[in-house]
Amino acid sequence: MSSGPPAVVLLSGGLDSTTVLAVARRDGYDISALSLDYGQRHAVELAAAERVARQAGIRRHEIIAIDLRAFGGSALTADIAVPKDRDDRQMRAGIPVTYVPARNTIFLSLALAFAEALGARDIFIGVNALDYSGYPDCRPEFIDAFERLAILATKAGVEGGRAFRVHAPLMRLTKAEIIALGVSLGVDYSATVSCYDPGADGEACGRCDACRLRLRGFAANGLRDPIRYAAVPSLSSARA
Amino acid sequence: MSSGPPAVVLLSGGLDSTTVLAVARRDGYDISALSLDYGQRHAVELAAAERVARQAGIRRHEIIAIDLRAFGGSALTADIAVPKDRDDRQMRAGIPVTYVPARNTIFLSLALAFAEALGARDIFIGVNALDYSGYPDCRPEFIDAFERLAILATKAGVEGGRAFRVHAPLMRLTKAEIIALGVSLGVDYSATVSCYDPGADGEACGRCDACRLRLRGFAANGLRDPIRYAAVPSLSSARA
Repeated sequence: MSSGPPAVVLLSGGLDSTTVLAVARRDGYDISALSLDYGQRHAVELAAAERVARQAGIRRHEIIAIDLRAFGGSALTADIAVPKDRDDRQMRAGIPVTYVPARNTIFLSLALAFAEALGARDIFIGVNALDYSGYPDCRPEFIDAFERLAILATKAGVEGGRAFRVHAPLMRLTKAEIIALGVSLGVDYSATVSCYDPGADGEACGRCDACRLRLRGFAANGLRDPIRYAAVPSLSSARA
Repeated sequence: MSSGPPAVVLLSGGLDSTTVLAVARRDGYDISALSLDYGQRHAVELAAAERVARQAGIRRHEIIAIDLRAFGGSALTADIAVPKDRDDRQMRAGIPVTYVPARNTIFLSLALAFAEALGARDIFIGVNALDYSGYPDCRPEFIDAFERLAILATKAGVEGGRAFRVHAPLMRLTKAEIIALGVSLGVDYSATVSCYDPGADGEACGRCDACRLRLRGFAANGLRDPIRYAAVPSLSSARA
Protein backbone atom coordinates (compact mmCIF):
# COMPACT_ATOMS: atom_id res chain seq x y z
CA MET A 1 0.00 0.00 0.00
CA SER A 2 0.94 3.62 -0.26
CA SER A 3 3.48 5.01 2.17
CA GLY A 4 2.28 8.57 1.60
CA PRO A 5 0.56 10.75 4.18
CA PRO A 6 -2.57 9.33 5.80
CA ALA A 7 -5.94 10.58 4.57
CA VAL A 8 -9.62 9.86 5.18
CA VAL A 9 -11.86 9.47 2.12
CA LEU A 10 -15.64 9.74 2.59
CA LEU A 11 -16.90 6.87 0.45
CA SER A 12 -20.60 6.53 -0.26
CA GLY A 13 -20.19 3.94 -2.99
CA GLY A 14 -21.53 6.42 -5.53
CA LEU A 15 -19.91 7.60 -8.73
CA ASP A 16 -18.48 10.81 -7.25
CA SER A 17 -16.87 9.43 -4.08
CA THR A 18 -15.46 6.46 -6.02
CA THR A 19 -13.78 8.90 -8.40
CA VAL A 20 -12.45 10.88 -5.42
CA LEU A 21 -10.97 7.69 -3.98
CA ALA A 22 -9.10 7.17 -7.25
CA VAL A 23 -7.80 10.76 -7.14
CA ALA A 24 -6.53 10.30 -3.57
CA ARG A 25 -4.79 7.05 -4.61
CA ARG A 26 -3.22 8.76 -7.62
CA ASP A 27 -1.91 11.47 -5.29
CA GLY A 28 -0.20 8.86 -3.11
CA TYR A 29 -2.22 9.07 0.11
CA ASP A 30 -2.39 6.19 2.56
CA ILE A 31 -6.19 5.96 2.57
CA SER A 32 -8.67 5.03 5.26
CA ALA A 33 -12.24 5.02 3.97
CA LEU A 34 -15.30 6.10 5.94
CA SER A 35 -18.90 5.26 5.03
CA LEU A 36 -22.02 6.24 6.90
CA ASP A 37 -25.03 4.02 7.34
CA TYR A 38 -27.48 6.81 8.11
CA GLY A 39 -30.74 5.04 7.39
CA GLN A 40 -30.74 6.16 3.75
CA ARG A 41 -33.31 4.66 1.41
CA HIS A 42 -30.53 3.74 -0.94
CA ALA A 43 -28.73 1.37 1.48
CA VAL A 44 -27.43 -0.61 -1.51
CA GLU A 45 -24.85 2.22 -1.54
CA LEU A 46 -23.12 0.62 1.43
CA ALA A 47 -22.65 -2.68 -0.38
CA ALA A 48 -21.24 -0.65 -3.27
CA ALA A 49 -18.87 1.18 -0.90
CA GLU A 50 -17.57 -2.16 0.36
CA ARG A 51 -17.03 -3.43 -3.20
CA VAL A 52 -15.23 -0.24 -4.20
CA ALA A 53 -12.99 -0.23 -1.10
CA ARG A 54 -12.12 -3.90 -1.61
CA GLN A 55 -11.30 -3.38 -5.30
CA ALA A 56 -9.09 -0.41 -4.38
CA GLY A 57 -7.23 -2.48 -1.77
CA ILE A 58 -8.13 -0.11 1.09
CA ARG A 59 -6.87 -1.61 4.34
CA ARG A 60 -9.18 0.20 6.72
CA HIS A 61 -12.80 0.91 5.89
CA GLU A 62 -15.05 1.98 8.75
CA ILE A 63 -18.82 1.93 8.32
CA ILE A 64 -20.42 4.03 11.06
CA ALA A 65 -24.12 3.60 11.79
CA ILE A 66 -26.06 6.72 12.69
CA ASP A 67 -29.77 6.72 12.20
CA LEU A 68 -30.75 10.12 10.78
CA ARG A 69 -34.30 8.79 10.29
CA ALA A 70 -34.82 9.88 13.91
CA PHE A 71 -34.84 13.46 12.61
CA GLY A 72 -36.52 12.91 9.23
CA GLY A 73 -37.02 15.90 6.97
CA SER A 74 -35.71 14.31 3.76
CA ALA A 75 -36.93 12.05 0.98
CA LEU A 76 -33.79 9.96 1.55
CA THR A 77 -34.54 9.25 5.21
CA ALA A 78 -38.32 9.64 5.59
CA ASP A 79 -41.44 8.52 3.78
CA ILE A 80 -41.37 11.30 1.17
CA ALA A 81 -41.41 10.46 -2.55
CA VAL A 82 -38.17 10.88 -4.52
CA PRO A 83 -38.82 13.25 -7.48
CA LYS A 84 -38.59 11.65 -10.92
CA ASP A 85 -38.20 12.79 -14.54
CA ARG A 86 -37.23 16.36 -13.69
CA ASP A 87 -35.69 18.49 -16.42
CA ASP A 88 -32.86 21.00 -15.98
CA ARG A 89 -35.17 23.83 -15.10
CA GLN A 90 -36.84 21.79 -12.37
CA MET A 91 -33.50 20.52 -11.02
CA ARG A 92 -32.27 24.11 -10.70
CA ALA A 93 -35.45 25.48 -9.11
CA GLY A 94 -34.23 25.18 -5.53
CA ILE A 95 -33.10 22.69 -2.93
CA PRO A 96 -35.03 19.43 -3.48
CA VAL A 97 -36.70 17.15 -0.92
CA THR A 98 -33.75 14.76 -1.21
CA TYR A 99 -31.72 17.27 0.82
CA VAL A 100 -30.82 15.65 4.18
CA PRO A 101 -30.57 18.25 6.97
CA ALA A 102 -26.92 19.01 7.75
CA ARG A 103 -25.76 15.76 6.15
CA ASN A 104 -22.35 16.87 4.92
CA THR A 105 -21.69 18.72 8.18
CA ILE A 106 -22.30 15.44 10.01
CA PHE A 107 -20.21 13.45 7.51
CA LEU A 108 -17.28 15.88 7.66
CA SER A 109 -17.44 15.99 11.47
CA LEU A 110 -17.08 12.22 11.59
CA ALA A 111 -14.31 12.29 8.99
CA LEU A 112 -12.56 14.93 11.13
CA ALA A 113 -12.80 12.70 14.21
CA PHE A 114 -11.44 9.74 12.25
CA ALA A 115 -8.65 11.86 10.73
CA GLU A 116 -7.62 13.27 14.10
CA ALA A 117 -7.57 9.81 15.70
CA LEU A 118 -5.43 8.53 12.78
CA GLY A 119 -3.04 11.48 12.87
CA ALA A 120 -4.22 12.47 9.37
CA ARG A 121 -4.63 16.05 8.16
CA ASP A 122 -6.29 15.34 4.83
CA ILE A 123 -9.95 14.59 4.21
CA PHE A 124 -11.45 13.88 0.77
CA ILE A 125 -15.11 14.43 -0.12
CA GLY A 126 -16.89 14.08 -3.45
CA VAL A 127 -19.00 17.23 -3.38
CA ASN A 128 -19.66 19.07 -6.60
CA ALA A 129 -21.11 22.51 -7.21
CA LEU A 130 -21.93 22.16 -10.92
CA ASP A 131 -23.94 19.06 -11.84
CA TYR A 132 -25.50 18.73 -8.43
CA SER A 133 -28.95 19.09 -6.99
CA GLY A 134 -28.65 22.49 -5.35
CA TYR A 135 -27.54 21.23 -1.93
CA PRO A 136 -26.06 24.05 0.20
CA ASP A 137 -23.47 21.75 1.77
CA CYS A 138 -21.86 21.00 -1.60
CA ARG A 139 -20.56 24.54 -2.18
CA PRO A 140 -16.97 25.81 -1.86
CA GLU A 141 -17.96 28.35 0.82
CA PHE A 142 -19.26 25.48 2.97
CA ILE A 143 -16.01 23.53 2.59
CA ASP A 144 -13.96 26.64 3.43
CA ALA A 145 -16.06 27.28 6.56
CA PHE A 146 -15.58 23.67 7.67
CA GLU A 147 -11.80 23.95 7.28
CA ARG A 148 -11.84 27.05 9.50
CA LEU A 149 -13.97 25.24 12.06
CA ALA A 150 -11.69 22.16 12.07
CA ILE A 151 -8.65 24.13 13.22
CA LEU A 152 -10.58 25.52 16.20
CA ALA A 153 -12.41 22.27 16.98
CA THR A 154 -9.54 19.86 17.46
CA LYS A 155 -6.55 19.14 19.65
CA ALA A 156 -4.55 18.59 16.45
CA GLY A 157 -5.62 21.99 15.14
CA VAL A 158 -4.89 23.85 18.38
CA GLU A 159 -1.64 22.10 19.33
CA GLY A 160 -0.44 20.96 15.93
CA GLY A 161 1.36 22.91 13.27
CA ARG A 162 -0.75 22.30 10.19
CA ALA A 163 -4.43 22.82 9.52
CA PHE A 164 -6.83 20.15 8.27
CA ARG A 165 -7.42 20.27 4.57
CA VAL A 166 -10.75 19.21 3.05
CA HIS A 167 -10.07 18.17 -0.53
CA ALA A 168 -13.02 18.45 -2.89
CA PRO A 169 -11.39 17.63 -6.22
CA LEU A 170 -14.71 17.38 -8.09
CA MET A 171 -16.01 20.76 -6.94
CA ARG A 172 -15.81 22.50 -10.30
CA LEU A 173 -16.21 19.53 -12.66
CA THR A 174 -19.29 18.61 -14.66
CA LYS A 175 -20.59 15.06 -14.29
CA ALA A 176 -19.14 14.30 -17.73
CA GLU A 177 -15.72 15.56 -16.61
CA ILE A 178 -15.90 13.53 -13.39
CA ILE A 179 -16.55 10.36 -15.38
CA ALA A 180 -13.76 11.18 -17.86
CA LEU A 181 -11.37 11.70 -14.92
CA GLY A 182 -12.40 8.42 -13.30
CA VAL A 183 -12.06 6.48 -16.55
CA SER A 184 -8.56 7.94 -17.02
CA LEU A 185 -7.68 6.67 -13.53
CA GLY A 186 -9.04 3.18 -14.24
CA VAL A 187 -12.21 3.42 -12.13
CA ASP A 188 -14.63 0.54 -12.62
CA TYR A 189 -18.00 2.27 -12.38
CA SER A 190 -19.87 -1.05 -12.53
CA ALA A 191 -19.27 -1.34 -8.75
CA THR A 192 -20.94 2.00 -7.96
CA VAL A 193 -24.52 3.00 -7.14
CA SER A 194 -25.97 6.51 -7.52
CA CYS A 195 -29.76 6.04 -7.61
CA TYR A 196 -31.82 7.69 -4.87
CA ASP A 197 -34.58 5.12 -5.20
CA PRO A 198 -33.19 1.76 -6.31
CA GLY A 199 -35.23 -1.41 -6.55
CA ALA A 200 -34.89 -4.17 -3.96
CA ASP A 201 -32.35 -5.90 -6.21
CA GLY A 202 -30.25 -2.71 -6.38
CA GLU A 203 -31.37 -1.83 -9.90
CA ALA A 204 -31.22 1.93 -10.55
CA CYS A 205 -34.52 3.68 -11.32
CA GLY A 206 -33.14 5.75 -14.22
CA ARG A 207 -35.50 8.60 -13.43
CA CYS A 208 -34.37 10.39 -10.23
CA ASP A 209 -32.04 13.41 -10.44
CA ALA A 210 -29.00 11.26 -9.54
CA CYS A 211 -29.73 8.72 -12.30
CA ARG A 212 -30.43 11.41 -14.90
CA LEU A 213 -27.24 13.35 -14.16
CA ARG A 214 -25.23 10.13 -14.24
CA LEU A 215 -26.70 8.85 -17.51
CA ARG A 216 -26.08 12.21 -19.18
CA GLY A 217 -22.48 12.19 -17.95
CA PHE A 218 -21.80 8.81 -19.56
CA ALA A 219 -23.63 9.82 -22.74
CA ALA A 220 -21.57 13.02 -23.03
CA ASN A 221 -18.42 10.85 -22.99
CA GLY A 222 -19.85 8.53 -25.63
CA LEU A 223 -19.86 5.76 -23.03
CA ARG A 224 -22.47 3.30 -21.82
CA ASP A 225 -23.08 3.33 -18.06
CA PRO A 226 -22.19 -0.24 -16.98
CA ILE A 227 -24.82 -0.51 -14.22
CA ARG A 228 -28.33 -1.92 -14.61
CA TYR A 229 -31.34 0.41 -14.92
CA ALA A 230 -35.03 -0.39 -14.57
CA ALA A 231 -35.79 2.34 -17.13
CA VAL A 232 -33.59 4.50 -19.30
CA PRO A 233 -35.86 7.26 -20.53
CA SER A 234 -35.01 9.66 -23.30
CA LEU A 235 -32.62 12.28 -21.96
CA SER A 236 -33.49 14.80 -24.63
CA SER A 237 -35.56 17.00 -22.32
CA ALA A 238 -32.72 17.06 -19.82
CA ARG A 239 -29.78 17.48 -22.21
CA ALA A 240 -27.77 20.60 -21.43
CA MET B 1 -45.73 22.94 27.69
CA SER B 2 -44.07 26.10 26.46
CA SER B 3 -45.49 27.74 23.39
CA GLY B 4 -42.25 29.66 22.79
CA PRO B 5 -39.93 29.14 19.81
CA PRO B 6 -38.63 25.60 19.27
CA ALA B 7 -35.10 24.79 20.40
CA VAL B 8 -32.79 21.79 20.59
CA VAL B 9 -30.90 21.24 23.86
CA LEU B 10 -27.89 18.91 23.83
CA LEU B 11 -28.42 16.93 27.02
CA SER B 12 -25.69 14.63 28.31
CA GLY B 13 -27.23 14.12 31.73
CA GLY B 14 -24.31 15.90 33.33
CA LEU B 15 -24.39 18.92 35.62
CA ASP B 16 -23.69 21.48 32.89
CA SER B 17 -26.23 20.37 30.26
CA THR B 18 -28.89 19.91 32.94
CA THR B 19 -28.33 23.52 34.00
CA VAL B 20 -28.53 24.63 30.36
CA LEU B 21 -31.86 22.82 29.99
CA ALA B 22 -33.17 24.82 32.96
CA VAL B 23 -31.95 28.08 31.36
CA ALA B 24 -33.70 27.24 28.07
CA ARG B 25 -36.91 26.46 29.98
CA ARG B 26 -36.65 29.73 31.92
CA ASP B 27 -36.29 31.56 28.60
CA GLY B 28 -39.53 30.02 27.33
CA TYR B 29 -38.29 27.74 24.55
CA ASP B 30 -40.30 24.74 23.38
CA ILE B 31 -37.52 22.21 23.97
CA SER B 32 -36.56 19.03 22.17
CA ALA B 33 -33.64 17.26 23.84
CA LEU B 34 -30.88 15.37 22.04
CA SER B 35 -28.53 12.88 23.68
CA LEU B 36 -25.75 10.92 22.02
CA ASP B 37 -24.89 7.34 22.85
CA TYR B 38 -21.37 7.45 21.44
CA GLY B 39 -19.84 4.47 23.21
CA GLN B 40 -18.69 6.57 26.14
CA ARG B 41 -17.32 4.78 29.20
CA HIS B 42 -19.73 6.77 31.30
CA ALA B 43 -22.90 5.38 29.71
CA VAL B 44 -24.73 5.90 33.00
CA GLU B 45 -24.93 9.48 31.66
CA LEU B 46 -27.68 8.36 29.27
CA ALA B 47 -29.85 7.05 32.08
CA ALA B 48 -29.27 10.39 33.81
CA ALA B 49 -30.27 12.26 30.63
CA GLU B 50 -33.53 10.31 30.53
CA ARG B 51 -34.25 11.09 34.20
CA VAL B 52 -33.49 14.78 33.70
CA ALA B 53 -35.64 15.05 30.55
CA ARG B 54 -38.53 13.26 32.25
CA GLN B 55 -38.34 15.48 35.34
CA ALA B 56 -38.31 18.57 33.09
CA GLY B 57 -41.38 17.35 31.20
CA ILE B 58 -39.61 17.36 27.81
CA ARG B 59 -41.97 15.92 25.20
CA ARG B 60 -39.39 14.85 22.67
CA HIS B 61 -36.04 13.37 23.65
CA GLU B 62 -34.02 11.66 20.93
CA ILE B 63 -31.09 9.43 21.86
CA ILE B 64 -28.93 8.87 18.81
CA ALA B 65 -26.44 6.00 18.79
CA ILE B 66 -23.11 6.62 17.06
CA ASP B 67 -20.20 4.47 18.04
CA LEU B 68 -17.14 6.71 18.22
CA ARG B 69 -15.17 3.77 19.63
CA ALA B 70 -14.58 2.85 15.97
CA PHE B 71 -12.16 5.78 15.83
CA GLY B 72 -10.74 5.60 19.38
CA GLY B 73 -8.18 8.18 20.43
CA SER B 74 -9.76 9.07 23.80
CA ALA B 75 -9.85 7.78 27.36
CA LEU B 76 -13.64 8.09 27.17
CA THR B 77 -14.02 5.80 24.16
CA ALA B 78 -10.93 3.56 24.19
CA ASP B 79 -8.98 1.50 26.69
CA ILE B 80 -6.93 4.41 28.04
CA ALA B 81 -6.91 5.17 31.79
CA VAL B 82 -8.87 8.21 33.01
CA PRO B 83 -6.46 10.52 34.94
CA LYS B 84 -7.17 10.84 38.65
CA ASP B 85 -6.28 13.18 41.54
CA ARG B 86 -4.92 15.94 39.29
CA ASP B 87 -4.38 19.36 40.83
CA ASP B 88 -5.08 22.70 39.12
CA ARG B 89 -1.63 22.91 37.59
CA GLN B 90 -2.00 19.46 36.05
CA MET B 91 -5.54 20.17 34.81
CA ARG B 92 -4.29 23.28 33.04
CA ALA B 93 -1.22 21.67 31.50
CA GLY B 94 -2.83 20.91 28.15
CA ILE B 95 -5.61 18.95 26.51
CA PRO B 96 -6.09 15.69 28.48
CA VAL B 97 -6.58 12.13 27.20
CA THR B 98 -10.30 12.43 27.94
CA TYR B 99 -10.57 14.69 24.88
CA VAL B 100 -12.73 12.90 22.26
CA PRO B 101 -11.67 13.84 18.71
CA ALA B 102 -14.12 16.35 17.20
CA ARG B 103 -16.83 15.43 19.71
CA ASN B 104 -18.59 18.75 19.99
CA THR B 105 -18.38 19.25 16.21
CA ILE B 106 -20.21 15.93 15.81
CA PHE B 107 -22.72 16.79 18.55
CA LEU B 108 -23.49 20.24 17.14
CA SER B 109 -23.80 18.81 13.61
CA LEU B 110 -26.45 16.40 14.83
CA ALA B 111 -28.18 19.13 16.82
CA LEU B 112 -28.17 21.24 13.66
CA ALA B 113 -29.80 18.43 11.67
CA PHE B 114 -32.43 17.96 14.38
CA ALA B 115 -33.05 21.72 14.62
CA GLU B 116 -33.41 22.10 10.86
CA ALA B 117 -35.83 19.16 10.64
CA LEU B 118 -37.86 20.67 13.52
CA GLY B 119 -37.87 24.17 12.02
CA ALA B 120 -35.89 25.40 15.04
CA ARG B 121 -33.19 28.06 14.90
CA ASP B 122 -31.89 27.76 18.45
CA ILE B 123 -29.46 25.18 19.80
CA PHE B 124 -28.27 25.02 23.41
CA ILE B 125 -24.99 23.44 24.52
CA GLY B 126 -23.38 23.31 27.96
CA VAL B 127 -19.81 24.15 27.03
CA ASN B 128 -17.73 26.19 29.40
CA ALA B 129 -14.37 27.89 28.90
CA LEU B 130 -13.45 28.49 32.55
CA ASP B 131 -13.70 25.41 34.80
CA TYR B 132 -13.17 22.98 31.97
CA SER B 133 -10.49 20.55 31.00
CA GLY B 134 -8.82 22.49 28.20
CA TYR B 135 -10.92 21.06 25.37
CA PRO B 136 -10.61 23.14 22.17
CA ASP B 137 -14.26 22.58 21.23
CA CYS B 138 -15.50 24.30 24.39
CA ARG B 139 -14.21 27.78 23.46
CA PRO B 140 -16.22 30.76 22.20
CA GLU B 141 -14.25 30.91 18.94
CA PHE B 142 -15.31 27.33 18.19
CA ILE B 143 -18.98 28.15 18.81
CA ASP B 144 -18.73 31.27 16.62
CA ALA B 145 -17.15 29.25 13.79
CA PHE B 146 -19.92 26.66 14.04
CA GLU B 147 -22.60 29.35 13.77
CA ARG B 148 -20.93 30.66 10.61
CA LEU B 149 -20.78 27.13 9.18
CA ALA B 150 -24.45 26.44 10.02
CA ILE B 151 -25.72 29.26 7.80
CA LEU B 152 -23.77 27.92 4.82
CA ALA B 153 -24.51 24.25 5.54
CA THR B 154 -28.28 24.20 5.60
CA LYS B 155 -31.32 24.76 3.45
CA ALA B 156 -32.79 26.80 6.32
CA GLY B 157 -29.66 28.96 6.42
CA VAL B 158 -29.50 29.52 2.66
CA GLU B 159 -33.22 29.96 1.98
CA GLY B 160 -34.40 31.19 5.37
CA GLY B 161 -34.24 34.62 6.84
CA ARG B 162 -32.56 34.03 10.17
CA ALA B 163 -29.30 32.34 11.13
CA PHE B 164 -28.94 29.49 13.58
CA ARG B 165 -27.91 30.54 17.04
CA VAL B 166 -25.80 28.30 19.26
CA HIS B 167 -26.49 29.31 22.86
CA ALA B 168 -23.71 28.54 25.32
CA PRO B 169 -25.03 30.23 28.46
CA LEU B 170 -22.38 28.67 30.72
CA MET B 171 -19.42 29.76 28.59
CA ARG B 172 -18.03 32.32 31.00
CA LEU B 173 -19.24 30.90 34.33
CA THR B 174 -17.18 29.07 36.94
CA LYS B 175 -18.45 25.68 38.06
CA ALA B 176 -19.56 27.33 41.33
CA GLU B 177 -21.55 29.93 39.37
CA ILE B 178 -23.13 27.23 37.19
CA ILE B 179 -24.33 25.37 40.27
CA ALA B 180 -25.63 28.58 41.88
CA LEU B 181 -27.53 29.35 38.65
CA GLY B 182 -29.03 25.86 38.51
CA VAL B 183 -30.06 25.93 42.17
CA SER B 184 -31.76 29.30 41.59
CA LEU B 185 -33.72 27.68 38.73
CA GLY B 186 -34.75 24.70 40.85
CA VAL B 187 -32.46 22.10 39.26
CA ASP B 188 -32.32 18.78 41.09
CA TYR B 189 -28.68 17.78 40.69
CA SER B 190 -29.29 14.38 42.29
CA ALA B 191 -30.46 13.17 38.85
CA THR B 192 -27.21 14.14 37.11
CA VAL B 193 -23.94 12.28 36.46
CA SER B 194 -20.58 13.94 35.72
CA CYS B 195 -17.95 11.28 36.49
CA TYR B 196 -15.68 10.12 33.63
CA ASP B 197 -15.13 6.74 35.26
CA PRO B 198 -18.16 5.70 37.33
CA GLY B 199 -18.54 2.30 39.00
CA ALA B 200 -20.89 -0.32 37.57
CA ASP B 201 -23.60 0.93 39.95
CA GLY B 202 -23.18 4.48 38.65
CA GLU B 203 -21.30 5.68 41.71
CA ALA B 204 -18.97 8.62 40.90
CA CYS B 205 -15.24 8.03 41.42
CA GLY B 206 -14.63 11.39 43.11
CA ARG B 207 -11.13 11.59 41.67
CA CYS B 208 -11.31 12.35 37.94
CA ASP B 209 -11.20 15.98 36.68
CA ALA B 210 -14.98 16.06 36.24
CA CYS B 211 -15.65 14.87 39.80
CA ARG B 212 -13.07 17.24 41.32
CA LEU B 213 -14.42 20.30 39.48
CA ARG B 214 -17.97 19.37 40.46
CA LEU B 215 -17.18 18.76 44.14
CA ARG B 216 -15.33 22.07 44.38
CA GLY B 217 -18.27 23.86 42.76
CA PHE B 218 -20.68 22.56 45.38
CA ALA B 219 -18.21 23.28 48.21
CA ALA B 220 -17.76 26.89 47.00
CA ASN B 221 -21.53 27.33 47.33
CA GLY B 222 -21.52 25.82 50.83
CA LEU B 223 -23.61 22.94 49.44
CA ARG B 224 -23.30 19.18 49.59
CA ASP B 225 -23.33 17.43 46.21
CA PRO B 226 -26.39 15.13 46.39
CA ILE B 227 -24.93 12.29 44.30
CA ARG B 228 -23.03 9.26 45.68
CA TYR B 229 -19.24 9.10 45.50
CA ALA B 230 -16.96 6.10 45.97
CA ALA B 231 -14.33 8.44 47.42
CA VAL B 232 -14.36 12.11 48.31
CA PRO B 233 -10.72 13.05 48.71
CA SER B 234 -9.47 16.26 50.27
CA LEU B 235 -9.85 19.04 47.73
CA SER B 236 -7.26 21.26 49.39
CA SER B 237 -4.59 20.65 46.76
CA ALA B 238 -7.09 21.53 44.02
CA ARG B 239 -8.78 24.52 45.66
CA ALA B 240 -8.52 27.63 43.51
